[in-house]
Amino acid sequence: MPIPKLKQNKERRQRLLESAIDLFIEKGYFNTSVREIIAKSGFGTGTFYNYFIDKEDILKALLEEFADQIISSVSSYYKTEKDLSKRFVETKRVTMEVFARNEKLSEIYSRVAGTSEAIDKCLKQFEDKLIEFYIRNIEYGIKKGAFNNVSVPPIAHAILAVEKFLLYKWIVLKDITNKEMVEMVVSFHETLAKGLVNNK
Amino acid sequence: MPIPKLKQNKERRQRLLESAIDLFIEKGYFNTSVREIIAKSGFGTGTFYNYFIDKEDILKALLEEFADQIISSVSSYYKTEKDLSKRFVETKRVTMEVFARNEKLSEIYSRVAGTSEAIDKCLKQFEDKLIEFYIRNIEYGIKKGAFNNVSVPPIAHAILAVEKFLLYKWIVLKDITNKEMVEMVVSFHETLAKGLVNNK
Repeated sequence: MPIPKLKQNKERRQRLLESAIDLFIEKGYFNTSVREIIAKSGFGTGTFYNYFIDKEDILKALLEEFADQIISSVSSYYKTEKDLSKRFVETKRVTMEVFARNEKLSEIYSRVAGTSEAIDKCLKQFEDKLIEFYIRNIEYGIKKGAFNNVSVPPIAHAILAVEKFLLYKWIVLKDITNKEMVEMVVSFHETLAKGLVNNK
Repeated sequence: MPIPKLKQNKERRQRLLESAIDLFIEKGYFNTSVREIIAKSGFGTGTFYNYFIDKEDILKALLEEFADQIISSVSSYYKTEKDLSKRFVETKRVTMEVFARNEKLSEIYSRVAGTSEAIDKCLKQFEDKLIEFYIRNIEYGIKKGAFNNVSVPPIAHAILAVEKFLLYKWIVLKDITNKEMVEMVVSFHETLAKGLVNNK
């Protein structure tokens, strides 16, 4: 049996992930089975289990890559802006634009919450990754003397909470447009930044 | 047929609501049927339909009364504190203490989100009621010159978002205690208040 090349591995994994995304959107996460994901991908059953354990494992992988994409977009932005107060606000725009561009992943993230313990764990992993990233960035600002010496975890949780809630207002409730979502998140962080920035 | 007295009406409605709460906690909202709520209450089927249309209608009533309880607790607090900046922070403590005291309603609210359109509507009604209350209070502070003239809806949404997210961390994920939940919400609002308060 020929050993699969790394590139082929990546492409197969990617095709399985994309088949899952499409089915989760079309039928909902709960109404989608692993069997259907396999059928849609066109691979055999064995191929699926080379990459994933079960449906939750697919969800975990999707959310993990989504978090990485957000973090890498924000990190790229850092190279273009050195002012820490402006960074604090504008990185939220960058983040919300990643959500806005990835409608399907945003919808999956917004819809699965609170429905089972296994799902809650997947979400927690995604959210903790972002919260820890926010904590590191605020702590950096405090260390540099740009921000007040506040308790950081409440702020980091609040940032994610606002992003998540306005995402849900856009993608699930369809109560606001994606532009309004981005502008509301940015506007809120402008006020929060005023409270955070050290005016000494 | 004797006309039921107002007091008896209220008590019956209350018993139906309490039967529903207990079943929603014990079996989950989705696994509870109207038939079971009726059985637990001890009333006949007709009695249920005198007060409610269906299961969603019960959820809507529970959340509506919960929102009223929060708003009335905050309004009572207003009588004891005139400083608008301190009010802004301390009302969040009052709110989170209402959530902490009402574990069952908090859990129902945290667990049902995102699962169906009918539920989303019930939640939206509850959340909009609180958001509108927050908007009025912040606008009052702006009118009085105590707060900066910021865009109010993003702030009001953020307040609810933070409360909701930390409630979920406590009651669903059991990641923090109810005391930590209250303190995190208050701590965040201290920073936000600094950004909101007009220092002219």
